[in-house]
Amino acid sequence: MWKQTAGGVCAPKGFRANGIHCGIRKNKIKKDLALIVADVRCATACVYTKNLVKGAPILVTQKHVADGYARAVIVNSGNANTCNPDGAEIAEGMCALVERHTGVARGDVVVASTGVIGQKLSLDPIEAGMEALVGGLGADAQNSAAAAEAIMTTDTVRKEVSYSFELGGKECRIGGICKGVGMICPNMATMLMFVTTDAAISPAMLQRALSDDVPDSVNMLTVDGDTSTNDTLCLMASGLAGNEEITEENEDYRTFCAALHAVTTEFCAMLAADGEGATRLIVCKVSGVCSKEDARLAAKAVVSSNLVKAMIFGADANAGRVMCALGYSGAKLNMSNASVRFCSAAGDLLTCENGMCVEFSEELAKAVLSEKRIEIDVVFRDGEGCATAWGCDLTYDYVKINGDYRT
Amino acid sequence: MWKQTAGGVCAPKGFRANGIHCGIRKNKIKKDLALIVADVRCATACVYTKNLVKGAPILVTQKHVADGYARAVIVNSGNANTCNPDGAEIAEGMCALVERHTGVARGDVVVASTGVIGQKLSLDPIEAGMEALVGGLGADAQNSAAAAEAIMTTDTVRKEVSYSFELGGKECRIGGICKGVGMICPNMATMLMFVTTDAAISPAMLQRALSDDVPDSVNMLTVDGDTSTNDTLCLMASGLAGNEEITEENEDYRTFCAALHAVTTEFCAMLAADGEGATRLIVCKVSGVCSKEDARLAAKAVVSSNLVKAMIFGADANAGRVMCALGYSGAKLNMSNASVRFCSAAGDLLTCENGMCVEFSEELAKAVLSEKRIEIDVVFRDGEGCATAWGCDLTYDYVKINGDYRT
Repeated sequence: MWKQTAGGVCAPKGFRANGIHCGIRKNKIKKDLALIVADVRCATACVYTKNLVKGAPILVTQKHVADGYARAVIVNSGNANTCNPDGAEIAEGMCALVERHTGVARGDVVVASTGVIGQKLSLDPIEAGMEALVGGLGADAQNSAAAAEAIMTTDTVRKEVSYSFELGGKECRIGGICKGVGMICPNMATMLMFVTTDAAISPAMLQRALSDDVPDSVNMLTVDGDTSTNDTLCLMASGLAGNEEITEENEDYRTFCAALHAVTTEFCAMLAADGEGATRLIVCKVSGVCSKEDARLAAKAVVSSNLVKAMIFGADANAGRVMCALGYSGAKLNMSNASVRFCSAAGDLLTCENGMCVEFSEELAKAVLSEKRIEIDVVFRDGEGCATAWGCDLTYDYVKINGDYRT
Repeated sequence: MWKQTAGGVCAPKGFRANGIHCGIRKNKIKKDLALIVADVRCATACVYTKNLVKGAPILVTQKHVADGYARAVIVNSGNANTCNPDGAEIAEGMCALVERHTGVARGDVVVASTGVIGQKLSLDPIEAGMEALVGGLGADAQNSAAAAEAIMTTDTVRKEVSYSFELGGKECRIGGICKGVGMICPNMATMLMFVTTDAAISPAMLQRALSDDVPDSVNMLTVDGDTSTNDTLCLMASGLAGNEEITEENEDYRTFCAALHAVTTEFCAMLAADGEGATRLIVCKVSGVCSKEDARLAAKAVVSSNLVKAMIFGADANAGRVMCALGYSGAKLNMSNASVRFCSAAGDLLTCENGMCVEFSEELAKAVLSEKRIEIDVVFRDGEGCATAWGCDLTYDYVKINGDYRT
C-alpha cells in the first residue's frame, strides 16, 4: 500500500528544510536550530504533551495552529524554554524572526524547543543565525538530514522516514523527522516529531487522523516513563499531490491513515532503539485480551518495567518479571490464560503457559535475548484486543547520562 | 507518645521467633527460613499486594486469617513460590509442618515466601530444618534478629523496629521485622513486613488501623515502581499488655494508630535507604495541595521518576525534573504556585518558586545533594493536603543487580 522513499521531511511536494549551528549550544559541531518552510499554507494538526507543565513554545504553537493551518516550523535544541518567566515572549520572538526572514506570517509558524529546562533562552544566537538558516533552505535529502540533526539532543542517530502511497491514482508522499530518545523529561530529550505530506486533506480530517493514530503509536512508546513537558507531534499537509481533498472517512482517508501509521510506528521503533543508553529495542505485543485499552495498558506496563528492562540488558530470561508487570498493569486480564514468549532473530522461547512458568533451555534463552531487537509476545484467549508497545533496556549508560546531564 | 525500645518483633509480650539456614538457598551463610510463634491466638490483620498475579502463600494466608486470628508466621526466602502449579499445596505443607512441630493449628499459620518466581519450592529442606528452627525459638533480641536475617533477599541490612507506648496506664509494645528493598518485582525483593504488638485490640479494629495506615506508609514507598506479587504486611496483637481491649475509635485507638504509623514509616525509610543499589534516601514532602490524594500522587511521582532518581545519584540539582514529574503525576495541581526546595543536613536550596526555576548556588547545590538523606519539599498554596513518599536514587548497581539476578 505504501513504499519507502528518500527525502525525509522534504520528500512530500512543497517543503524545504535546513538545520544549522547558531550558538545556543556551546559545542560548535552540534547543530541547534532547524527550520521547515512550506510553499503554501498547510492544513496542520498537532498533539502535545499532557504534562501540566507545558513548555512556552507549546502555548504559542497552540495559538498559532488554532485555525488549522501553518506554513513553517522553527525548532531549537539545547534549551527547552520551559519554566522561564519570559518563555512565551521568546517563543513569539522566534516566530517573528521567521516572518522577518521568510515572509511567512508569524501566526502561521509552529515553534518548538528541546533541551534543559529552567534556563533562559536568548534570541541573540537565533537572530544571528537566521540568514544562514533561511539561505540554506532546500528540498533535497541533505536538507531534511540537516534539520533532523539540528533537533537532536541525546539522540545518537538522526531519525527520518518517508513513504509514498497512492490516493485516487495520484502519488502522494509522507515523510518526517523526529528526535527524543523516549518520553523523557525536559532537560534532555523530549519527543519532537514533524511529519509532512503533500496529500490534500482538510484540517479537521488531518487532526482526526493524527488524534486517532497517537494512542497506538507515540503513546505506546517509553524509555523511562517520564513524560516530557515539551512533547510535540506536528503534521502538515501541503495538498500539492493533486489528489481529491479528503474531507470524510472514505477509502482515501483510510489509506492516508495507514501511511501515517507506518511513519509514526517506524519512528517509535527508531526512538526506542536509540533510547538513552539503550543496547536493545524491546517490542511487546499483547493479544487475545477483552479490550484494546486493556491490551495497551498491559503492553505498556511490560516495556515500562525497570526490572524487565534490566533483565533484557542482562539477557536473563526472567519471565516472572513479565508476569508481574502484566499483573500490576491495571489491565483487566485473565492471568491464568497468559502465555509469554521471547522472540528474536535467534529464535522463539516459550517461558510461560496458562499463567505458569515453564522450563526452557537456558542456552536458547541466552541466544534469543542477545539480539538487538527483542519481541515479548503475550497471548491471552479472552478476546480480540491487541496492542504493541516500544521500549528499550535499562543500562549503566542510562544512569550515567542522567546522573549528570545538566552540569 | 511512644519511645524506642529493643527487641524487634519479640519486643511485645507473647512472641518468640527464630531464623535459620535450612537449605532453600545454596549459600550456607545466608539464613532462609523464619518462624514467629505467639503464646496465644492473636487478633491478626493483613494487607497484600494488589498485583493480579499473587504468590500462592498469599492465597493460603488469606484463607487462614479470614477469621481475624492467627498464632504463627512461617516465611522462607530464596524462592517466591509464585506461578508454580503446586504452589498452594507447598504453602499449605509449610503450615502443616508448623502444626506438627509446634502444635499451632495449621489454620492459624500465616505463610509467606520471597525470592525467585516460577521455580519449584521443595518442602524437603524446610521439613529437615523444622526441629532446629522450633528448638531455637526465643523472645530475646537475637531471636528477632535471626528472623529478620532469614527473610532478607537483596537487602544489605536487617530491618527491625520496636516502640513502647501507653494505653490506659498500661505499657504496650509494638515491634516488627521487614525486608524488601522496594516494591520490587518477584524475583528478588518483595516487601514483607511482620509487626507484633501486645496491645489488646479487636480483629476488626486492628484491620481498620492497618488499612488506614498503609495509604500513608508502605503505599508511599517505591524503589523502582514494580509492584511485587508477594507483598504482605501482617500485624498480630497478642493482647498480653493488659490494657482494656480497643473495640472502637477512641483515644486508645488513636494512640495505637500513631505508634503503628511510627513503626511502618520508619520501616519505609529503612527500606528505601536500602533500595537496590541505592546510595541515598529520597523523602519527598508535598503540602498545600487541595486534597490528600493529590498530595500522595504528586509525592509518589517525584520519588518514582527515573530522572529524579538518576539526578540525585549524580547530585545534580536539576529542579526541572521535579517540576516535570509533578506535572505528569495525575494530581490536580496549580503548578504556578509550586515552590521546590532540596534539603539535607548540609542546608536548604530553593530551586523553583511560583512555578518557575530560580537561580541558585551550584556549590550549595552540590553540598546539599551529596548527603545520604535528601528531602524534596514541594509547597503549594492551595489547601491543606499533604503527603510524604520514600524512594532512593537510581544507580549503576541497580542495573547490575537486576541485569543478571536469576542466573
